[in-house]
Amino acid sequence: MSTKSKIIYTLTDEAPALATASLLPIIRTFSSTADIEVDLSDISLAGRILSAFPERLTEEQRVEDGLAFLGDLTKDPEANIIKLPNISASVPQLRAAIKELKEQGYDIPEFAENPQTDEEKDANARYAKILGSAVNPVLRQGNSDRRAPAAVKAFARKFPHSMGKWSKASRSHADYMRSGDFFSSEQSITMADAGDVRIEFVAEGGQPELKKELSLDKGEVLDGMFMSAKALDAFFEETLQDCKESGVMWSLHVKATMMKVSHPIVFGHAVRVFYREVFDKYGELFDEIGVNPNNGMSSVYEKIKTLPQSTQDEIEEAIHACYEHRPEMAMVDSVKGITNLHIPSDVIVDASMPAMIRSSGQMWGRDGKTKDTKAVMPESTYARIYQEVINFCKTNGAFDPTTMGTVPNVGLMAMKAEEYGSHDKTFEVQADGVMRVVDAAGNVLMQHNVEKGDIWRACQTKDPAIRDWVKLAVTRSRQSNTPAVFWLDQERAHDLELTKKVKEYLKEHDTEGLEIHIMSYNEAIRFSMERMIRGLDTISVSGNVLRDYLTDLFPIMELGTSAKMLSIVPMLAGGGMYETGAGGSAPKHVQQVEQENHLRWDSLGEFLALGVSLEELGIKQNNARAKVLAAALDKATERLLENGKSPSRKAGELDNRGSHFYLAMYWAQEVAAQTEDADLAAEFKPLADALTENEQKIVEELNAVQGKPAELDGYYHANLDVVAKVMRPSATFNQILDGFCK
Amino acid sequence: MSTKSKIIYTLTDEAPALATASLLPIIRTFSSTADIEVDLSDISLAGRILSAFPERLTEEQRVEDGLAFLGDLTKDPEANIIKLPNISASVPQLRAAIKELKEQGYDIPEFAENPQTDEEKDANARYAKILGSAVNPVLRQGNSDRRAPAAVKAFARKFPHSMGKWSKASRSHADYMRSGDFFSSEQSITMADAGDVRIEFVAEGGQPELKKELSLDKGEVLDGMFMSAKALDAFFEETLQDCKESGVMWSLHVKATMMKVSHPIVFGHAVRVFYREVFDKYGELFDEIGVNPNNGMSSVYEKIKTLPQSTQDEIEEAIHACYEHRPEMAMVDSVKGITNLHIPSDVIVDASMPAMIRSSGQMWGRDGKTKDTKAVMPESTYARIYQEVINFCKTNGAFDPTTMGTVPNVGLMAMKAEEYGSHDKTFEVQADGVMRVVDAAGNVLMQHNVEKGDIWRACQTKDPAIRDWVKLAVTRSRQSNTPAVFWLDQERAHDLELTKKVKEYLKEHDTEGLEIHIMSYNEAIRFSMERMIRGLDTISVSGNVLRDYLTDLFPIMELGTSAKMLSIVPMLAGGGMYETGAGGSAPKHVQQVEQENHLRWDSLGEFLALGVSLEELGIKQNNARAKVLAAALDKATERLLENGKSPSRKAGELDNRGSHFYLAMYWAQEVAAQTEDADLAAEFKPLADALTENEQKIVEELNAVQGKPAELDGYYHANLDVVAKVMRPSATFNQILDGFCK
Repeated sequence: MSTKSKIIYTLTDEAPALATASLLPIIRTFSSTADIEVDLSDISLAGRILSAFPERLTEEQRVEDGLAFLGDLTKDPEANIIKLPNISASVPQLRAAIKELKEQGYDIPEFAENPQTDEEKDANARYAKILGSAVNPVLRQGNSDRRAPAAVKAFARKFPHSMGKWSKASRSHADYMRSGDFFSSEQSITMADAGDVRIEFVAEGGQPELKKELSLDKGEVLDGMFMSAKALDAFFEETLQDCKESGVMWSLHVKATMMKVSHPIVFGHAVRVFYREVFDKYGELFDEIGVNPNNGMSSVYEKIKTLPQSTQDEIEEAIHACYEHRPEMAMVDSVKGITNLHIPSDVIVDASMPAMIRSSGQMWGRDGKTKDTKAVMPESTYARIYQEVINFCKTNGAFDPTTMGTVPNVGLMAMKAEEYGSHDKTFEVQADGVMRVVDAAGNVLMQHNVEKGDIWRACQTKDPAIRDWVKLAVTRSRQSNTPAVFWLDQERAHDLELTKKVKEYLKEHDTEGLEIHIMSYNEAIRFSMERMIRGLDTISVSGNVLRDYLTDLFPIMELGTSAKMLSIVPMLAGGGMYETGAGGSAPKHVQQVEQENHLRWDSLGEFLALGVSLEELGIKQNNARAKVLAAALDKATERLLENGKSPSRKAGELDNRGSHFYLAMYWAQEVAAQTEDADLAAEFKPLADALTENEQKIVEELNAVQGKPAELDGYYHANLDVVAKVMRPSATFNQILDGFCK
Repeated sequence: MSTKSKIIYTLTDEAPALATASLLPIIRTFSSTADIEVDLSDISLAGRILSAFPERLTEEQRVEDGLAFLGDLTKDPEANIIKLPNISASVPQLRAAIKELKEQGYDIPEFAENPQTDEEKDANARYAKILGSAVNPVLRQGNSDRRAPAAVKAFARKFPHSMGKWSKASRSHADYMRSGDFFSSEQSITMADAGDVRIEFVAEGGQPELKKELSLDKGEVLDGMFMSAKALDAFFEETLQDCKESGVMWSLHVKATMMKVSHPIVFGHAVRVFYREVFDKYGELFDEIGVNPNNGMSSVYEKIKTLPQSTQDEIEEAIHACYEHRPEMAMVDSVKGITNLHIPSDVIVDASMPAMIRSSGQMWGRDGKTKDTKAVMPESTYARIYQEVINFCKTNGAFDPTTMGTVPNVGLMAMKAEEYGSHDKTFEVQADGVMRVVDAAGNVLMQHNVEKGDIWRACQTKDPAIRDWVKLAVTRSRQSNTPAVFWLDQERAHDLELTKKVKEYLKEHDTEGLEIHIMSYNEAIRFSMERMIRGLDTISVSGNVLRDYLTDLFPIMELGTSAKMLSIVPMLAGGGMYETGAGGSAPKHVQQVEQENHLRWDSLGEFLALGVSLEELGIKQNNARAKVLAAALDKATERLLENGKSPSRKAGELDNRGSHFYLAMYWAQEVAAQTEDADLAAEFKPLADALTENEQKIVEELNAVQGKPAELDGYYHANLDVVAKVMRPSATFNQILDGFCK
């Protein structure tokens, strides 16, 4: 890389790509004053397609492989990447893009339904690397750093979202297994040397059956644990009885999406216990017609449609009979009668629990009223933190967004750390026996006596990921002058292994003057909450699952949504990626532009990512002006939010472009007003003045073009010049901006 | 003092004195093997009377002034005193004792109703020092060390008391002021030098009015704080509204007995708010007839009796009308209709809250059923710990006496430390103005803007008391190998002053290898409870009020009662006093002896005190045999409890004497069985054998004398030889015991 400061901005697809046409010139203008170059790297679907077939394109048509470039860049300690949402292409999207490119004269091959020829096979192999979620795995080469940006936090403090009051007499609570769950059985080892291990199942009196082979690195942490099916069923029954007795509504909160192997099974157990009589009576029939309780009651309703009406009626009656003696169950949709047990992906713990806590600890009942509820989360490892929060809210009332501190997260994520419950190392045990992990020499590293139906899983965490995580925690603590708490439970085998490493790796850093703690989850969340209600901030330094849970829990309390969080991936190699926005690339927004030339896309995520990109660049490259720009940008974003200059949804009103103008104006004003760098302030003064003076004119020009169709000359591969014209319709604004450029 | 190990056993009155006649010979016999002398010091009422008039008695009749002797002894670092309950004489008791002594030929003066002559005045002045609670103030020259003895703890583990189950859906909770209470306004200073200060009230536009002068020592901590009457009333109203809305029962928990100035006022506020309409309408009338709401509704019912029946009926109707719109109130006696607001001393927080927590978080309702309740405790300083316990029980269920650890207490008590809320430094403010503390030079040390009705109080804590408290905490932590937690809230002004001293004084001790923490009350109780449910012990090192609260709270959970706790006062000078039993000297037990020669007095307190007396002596004087005897005694006490060898209440069954025999037998067996001191074991073998062989015979002899009257030859001043004969009726037991004596 050149020694000049450089930011790589990603050219993606659809709405974010349109927004970039308007925003990037502003960013480049401002950045240039700090000697920062902003390069565009094309990782759009079209770009990725074109870069896959250079030999079929003319010299002029060829494009660089942006993703490959970025993939390499992640290994560069100077990398500074702002990553906008891109299309995770489905096959129809891929086909549409190919069609468009061919129409534009690019000689690329079709994506064959059934590739026959070598050429077709070769083409499809190249397309395979473009399909689906192809970008994140390449770019996310580090741990996770998520925080509420200052501007967003300040906005939430001034314009707080609604928070349901908590009654001290609330009956709501979290309930979890006290034994027989993953927490109780967890074993953990750290590899003294690199080596291969086998996960085996040995049925009673049988031979070892290989379930999985793993190649482990030196220093890698490997865990094994299981959940007893019997204990799980007994636990579910107990929670149902308890609800029946106490009159509190029953609800189940699992994470069947991310823990996509283990949690649907857990969900299936709940379905079978709740509707025990139904499954007792119709179990065999259900097996025949292919009912899978892991898919929820929707599976029952769907599959029984093949049965005679009288049988269907009988089964539905049996289902209704269950409701008679079971407690009330929380509803996903009380109007449509969709219960908590209908589909496993409807109630996802990391979103559903914060929602419940925000709603006075209540969920929706069958009668459409909100009610106190027992939140059942079998795995005690993480469920306990929710009970801690509930107790805290009962004691202190609902959190107050206008005064509460913030809890940013430093999450262990690199190199697929702690990918629990999902994927290739989770097994539903098929017979009574032993699950064990054996090394190449035949030594048993860990083993569990299991029974048919138990859920066993292993989990890997690589040493460099942990080491980097510790470094990131110290860095964040230092940079934000905020206490950092490692959430490590000394009663968990895995966390004990991690604690040793954390203590060791902390020695590699200057922690003088920093407040760094190691606490159990309950201690940590209590400590954080006690600080939070006093307006104090605390960094949570957590494993991967808690990263996921906490970056929903705290943001939803603090900001009303987790979508406004800054999401940073500081790469293992030293560079940084700044992700913008949550969610996709908004095709509907593009339609609106095509129809009435109004782009409702909110670039808040880009503003925030840019702020931190500049800040980090300032710190790493000792670029003082970058720091000044970053601070001013944060203030500008704050004013933008406060003054309601985010895009409207309606044509004729301020849209994405107008929002960019206000950002530019506020940003220029803030740079001009700051006193840290007087030269820079002076430099920006004329720009600030010009934008301020012409505010009304520019906004009028920006709004005037709206209301009629806009031609982008392409969808997946729009003409960038055309797009630039559409997205920069204010001559006054363009002139002022261009005039500022050196 | 001689260098020989010596224990001073107190001769007191009534039942404990009778028990001593049987127990002391056993104690002396066993102690002699460790070269320990057990002296008897007479602090009985009769002894104190006789020692007050030496000039009127013959040489033979004269008795040593036991209390004066012990008072001196408290200054001796070698002091080792076992203090049994004694009579706190009322005037009638004093008269009866004088009468008895005169009849026995002692020429002592009468206690004159209206002393006229110099002689009468002189006599009454001497008697004044004997009346009332005259012993404890002389002897309690130190901080407090209270613990559950090992034997008692073991018994509770094997034979647990009942514990009400906790529902996770319980609505019970503690409620306390969030502002305007003592906690919020507390100010605290440490005196740089000794000096006099004045507590003054300055009414708006008025002159300073002296409320109290204090002479403070160098290093003494002085606090000032107040509770806002307006905030208190608003808080009460809010709790009532909240209960009305949520349907949870309302209850008030104060400490009107110990905090005898401030808490009756707080109670009075609750009465006036709950029955607002009654006091609004009849307030003036109530003033006329002398109703004092600080004495509860009983005062209303009592005083209105002087009014015409029709007015009485009207008032009672108005009272009943209040119940219509107020929430249900917890009852002291639902049958008799005695509510929580009837008398301020009925519900005492340190006893009532543990009782509620032991009873599933419930109290009695008007209909005689137990119900979830809001426990209102205005002062947040201490109330918060109960909410923490309640949350803990909701989360983890009721405590389990069979597995739970213990939380002994080291309490700051010496030199009247932290005597909050009572006595001479608490004032109900009579007008709007300023309460302030001013030093001799006129500097204002602290001040509060107060309003009419506010409750202002000051509190003193002397430096040597704090220093000794720290030492005691370290000593106890070392001796019991148990973590010690100083309960000091860094958000409290007083505790901040104490924390500085604690940190300073901790340096004076070897704390190597000890786990010593400083935690806020909530952290401390949570930490202790988390350890407790894992079977681990934690010493609470607390101020005086928490000492009082915690030595009820934890014992009631652990042992079912606080009466079985060891209560030790390690004197500031270095000696130790071991108090036995809670409660008085049981005159009814003496009556039973006189009528049917059965003493139901339980000497468990003496056994426990003796155990620790021996243990401490062993440690301090490096007397290994004393340690062995102590350990064996603990085991013996444990077996005695387990085998049900405590006194029965019925004549003809095992009584106090039989219980002593079993203690002796078990104790001898345990010494004979221990392997630490083989010589001592060998020495005790014959005694153990003889007692074991003759068990049946001895018990028969002890029980045979029962059922007919016993003559003690005196009540306040019984003939000790006669008493000895009555209390040692087994020739076999006496012979074996006497034969063992060297």
